[in-house]
Amino acid sequence: MMKEKGLLIVLSGPSGVGKGTVRKELFSQPDITFEYSISMTTRVPREGEVDGVDYFFKSREEFEKLIEQDRLLEYAEFVGNYYGTPVDYVRDTINDGRDVFLEIEVQGARQIRDKFPEGLFIFLAPPSLSELENRLIHRGTESSHVIANRVETAKKELEMMNLYDYVVENDQVKKASERIKAIVVAEHLRRERVEARYKKMLEVK
Amino acid sequence: MMKEKGLLIVLSGPSGVGKGTVRKELFSQPDITFEYSISMTTRVPREGEVDGVDYFFKSREEFEKLIEQDRLLEYAEFVGNYYGTPVDYVRDTINDGRDVFLEIEVQGARQIRDKFPEGLFIFLAPPSLSELENRLIHRGTESSHVIANRVETAKKELEMMNLYDYVVENDQVKKASERIKAIVVAEHLRRERVEARYKKMLEVK
Repeated sequence: MMKEKGLLIVLSGPSGVGKGTVRKELFSQPDITFEYSISMTTRVPREGEVDGVDYFFKSREEFEKLIEQDRLLEYAEFVGNYYGTPVDYVRDTINDGRDVFLEIEVQGARQIRDKFPEGLFIFLAPPSLSELENRLIHRGTESSHVIANRVETAKKELEMMNLYDYVVENDQVKKASERIKAIVVAEHLRRERVEARYKKMLEVK
Repeated sequence: MMKEKGLLIVLSGPSGVGKGTVRKELFSQPDITFEYSISMTTRVPREGEVDGVDYFFKSREEFEKLIEQDRLLEYAEFVGNYYGTPVDYVRDTINDGRDVFLEIEVQGARQIRDKFPEGLFIFLAPPSLSELENRLIHRGTESSHVIANRVETAKKELEMMNLYDYVVENDQVKKASERIKAIVVAEHLRRERVEARYKKMLEVK
């Protein structure tokens, strides 16, 4: 009744940045308080991947049926395969007061942002931006060509982070996962959340 | 040049809630990254209090001169004594990219909120609200009179937290200080801050 809704935590970022590794590190920790929302895909399982653990593996037909029924929070097609997030699990868990953690591609994060603006959007960034910063500070040894390339990459990364609430650099997996945990702790302490919860309590009284 | 400004972290809350204890716990930790802004007061030092450590102890005349010169970020009078925050130290530290931590009374926090809306305002709350929540959940054993008193207190606490960004319950000093640390980590990762820093870097280039 007075239950506070859980958070929808969305971790995304450029492909190859190490989202999966950070997610595994997070979920290997005993004090983790959020639940992992397993994605659905039509791609073939890779060596060692387990259905219902790494992904829900579905046929193209099954997946397209779920799209039709509007039972996916987001979905996308990459290299001929669908990837998506089943909506029921996410809504049920949040309504039950538990946090849900999603790890998805940038395209999917954008769809969720539209449907779930109250979610917590975390951009996992490659260390290239702070590397560039160091290069610029200690400049002189690099050719201007190398620097110019780096600047182009940096600008693209900056554009991508635009829709996110937080930016976590993946310089070290352990550090990145600690930062994500701190963000989740802090979000639960935001005054609006705490206040709303207690106000509800006083109304109920 | 590309330096990011430090945060002004303001810890406040009702008197008696344990602000000083939480502050001491925080600053006893080796990994703390922010600096403590020592307040100024005209009150007589208590047993064991050291000038320049616990407070800057000043005479009334000295203090009133600083007020005139507008060199206090906030000040207040309690029981015939002035308490205040010297502005120069705070501005210099923040401009140098370091975080400053203030522990002050509610009245002072309000003044700072006006002058420094970009500060990080943390309300240290007594455990009475969540105690009340527990009482209401497991109700039946309490007289309605006791509950009604608790509700009145809770309403006052709710009103007080209105101007703050975060609410940290002081159920355990150690836990409260961990929460404050998480908030500071998270604030540094907010996209607007990270983005602003890197955008500045790319302009400089």
